[in-house]
Amino acid sequence: MNYEEKIIEYPPVHPGTDRTFIRFYEGEPNPKAMLLGGCDEMPQRVFVTDTTVSSLPCMDEFTAEFGTGKGAAANSVHKRRSGKDILVILGAGEPFKTIESVLSIVAAALDANGQRSTVFVGIGGGVITDMTAFAASIFKRGARCELVPTTLLSMVDAAVGGKTGCDFGSYKNMIGSFFPAQKIHICPEFIKTLPQSEYRSGLAEVVKTALLFSAPLFDKLESNPGILDGRGKSEFAPLISEMIRTCVSEKASVVEQDLTEKGMRMLLNLGHTFGHALETCAGLGKVAHGDGVAWGMARAADLSERLGLCTKEYAERVKRMLRSYTWETSEIHPAMEGKGSAGDIARTIFGAMKKDKKNSSSKVRFVLQRGVCDTVITEADEGDVLAVLGAER
Amino acid sequence: MNYEEKIIEYPPVHPGTDRTFIRFYEGEPNPKAMLLGGCDEMPQRVFVTDTTVSSLPCMDEFTAEFGTGKGAAANSVHKRRSGKDILVILGAGEPFKTIESVLSIVAAALDANGQRSTVFVGIGGGVITDMTAFAASIFKRGARCELVPTTLLSMVDAAVGGKTGCDFGSYKNMIGSFFPAQKIHICPEFIKTLPQSEYRSGLAEVVKTALLFSAPLFDKLESNPGILDGRGKSEFAPLISEMIRTCVSEKASVVEQDLTEKGMRMLLNLGHTFGHALETCAGLGKVAHGDGVAWGMARAADLSERLGLCTKEYAERVKRMLRSYTWETSEIHPAMEGKGSAGDIARTIFGAMKKDKKNSSSKVRFVLQRGVCDTVITEADEGDVLAVLGAER
Repeated sequence: MNYEEKIIEYPPVHPGTDRTFIRFYEGEPNPKAMLLGGCDEMPQRVFVTDTTVSSLPCMDEFTAEFGTGKGAAANSVHKRRSGKDILVILGAGEPFKTIESVLSIVAAALDANGQRSTVFVGIGGGVITDMTAFAASIFKRGARCELVPTTLLSMVDAAVGGKTGCDFGSYKNMIGSFFPAQKIHICPEFIKTLPQSEYRSGLAEVVKTALLFSAPLFDKLESNPGILDGRGKSEFAPLISEMIRTCVSEKASVVEQDLTEKGMRMLLNLGHTFGHALETCAGLGKVAHGDGVAWGMARAADLSERLGLCTKEYAERVKRMLRSYTWETSEIHPAMEGKGSAGDIARTIFGAMKKDKKNSSSKVRFVLQRGVCDTVITEADEGDVLAVLGAER
Repeated sequence: MNYEEKIIEYPPVHPGTDRTFIRFYEGEPNPKAMLLGGCDEMPQRVFVTDTTVSSLPCMDEFTAEFGTGKGAAANSVHKRRSGKDILVILGAGEPFKTIESVLSIVAAALDANGQRSTVFVGIGGGVITDMTAFAASIFKRGARCELVPTTLLSMVDAAVGGKTGCDFGSYKNMIGSFFPAQKIHICPEFIKTLPQSEYRSGLAEVVKTALLFSAPLFDKLESNPGILDGRGKSEFAPLISEMIRTCVSEKASVVEQDLTEKGMRMLLNLGHTFGHALETCAGLGKVAHGDGVAWGMARAADLSERLGLCTKEYAERVKRMLRSYTWETSEIHPAMEGKGSAGDIARTIFGAMKKDKKNSSSKVRFVLQRGVCDTVITEADEGDVLAVLGAER
């Protein structure tokens, strides 16, 4: 059919989301002081958290402002005394990372007569920050967003960089948007409130940052495995605080150059292609994200070695360091045991990789390494991938 | 609490959505030629349409490519012979403009192993184009989008300008995003397939464009009311084609300057504040969008006169023209009769206006006119609004 063509050119979408202010706080977390200070002229806020975070002692004064006692129920929505701000408390954990949870945030904001000027404030781990930012991005086609990451993982990774979303069916983060928060409030001492397993999960992203961007950080992690069990010790406080700042700076530098993952942001997926597939195949929520990534980094090291990209020594050094933090590095992750033969498991994981949203074709791309701070993105043959997943065992 | 601050600055979100190619086609619509030509190396496409459009004779050759017969059922998803492209057929009309419909598009794309490079192609009226573009915007945080508007309303308004979304509960377009299509295919002869009521609804947006931007178009509409019943007549074909191009050009010019409705794009809401409130209060789907807007333009004319912005003559001229196209211009729309006293109805509609997503505070802003091409955005007192809604009758 014949046609004539006209071109419309737009300004950037969402000019309000073109920068993020990241605030690093000192001392004990005090959400009330951090979030509820300010004048009466503040825009309306929709605070979103989960039952775990809302039960933390440091949250008591904050939740009391909403008339909410300790252990408030999930999905309870309480009007603040001012009648303007509201607090939404969701169920905690990956199983609640659903479109239904996101829509419950939207519905609460709508009930409170929320506008595009309303600020959605997510207080929690990556599940809460991803969903709160997603809700903000679709509410009336885009409201405003601030995040208060309370886990190590969300401080160093999830909150920074504008990725939002929720799971869909059995697939992680299949729907979402790129919608950077306007402010991120980082209070490192929140990590003292974490269960050990979540703290360990967050450390995996710290290790990833070290492998990708910082040999000195890798050396420190290698020589201080004591931080795994010593986050309460004053000797480790400066190291942990420095780790968080290094990770935030390195991630910021990447997303400033490539917010929407067309190029170098893909480096941040080191360990994630394997890790996400493991998380999906084990059943969402069975393997913590960071633990999946740690295992994925071990698999990426083996694949790098197998493809002749790095030496056996480098692959062994990476895996030894991961094991010193008690992460699984073997070809078949224990969470997959009982799910068929070694070959079956390898093929199941490879199948999930092919559905990963970062793959633009049927080939699967991997982030692999020649050494610390020397990273390549490459496709790999199915046979090599299956081999490092233990199919030949 | 003390803090230090760091700022991250991002490039524009979604660089791929920074321009739209609009193609104007001549002659009878031929979706197969328009959409299924091209080489095997085309990216995967997820075509989305509804039961009404898929039943049009001009769609037969297109749907046959997917093995789909006439009158295929809603939500049926058929693989194309190539095994790559798919066709999703949704139920037709506003009641299907739900998050469930959007998620069914996402699920179909996921089942077909869709990637970020997958192109979501919406073929239909505003309901289909809005939902298809919304699904594209949230699929894996942003895939690609093309639109084929088949109604006059979607050609002149809905498809152009990047607004996407669906209804939520009883509120129109409460969730969505700004996500411009990469291509829009406009084939004016599609309008011959429309029911008369939908054609009339689309004409209302043409009238709006005339009032806002084009005195010559207003004159032509005023002197050719015969186009309401004469779209099949060859004498009107050039006028209708010109109308569509004028509307697309004027809208393009506005959204190029203000995609996200921070400024002059708000002008496009002439008649919409009243119209959307009527649509919501009458029950979604009861009053066609354009008919609501036409009634809203009559209310805006009366409010403009009441506030001393325009003369009685201008308000009467606008309403006379609207009536010549058989639109309702009286204070109380017939769709609201039986819903309480005149005062009750006026207050119900005013309440719905306050929830409109374009209002950033509790005040309601209106797009009003001093005359053709002389438009102002202003707040109005509740008393004046209720008066032009017939509360004093």
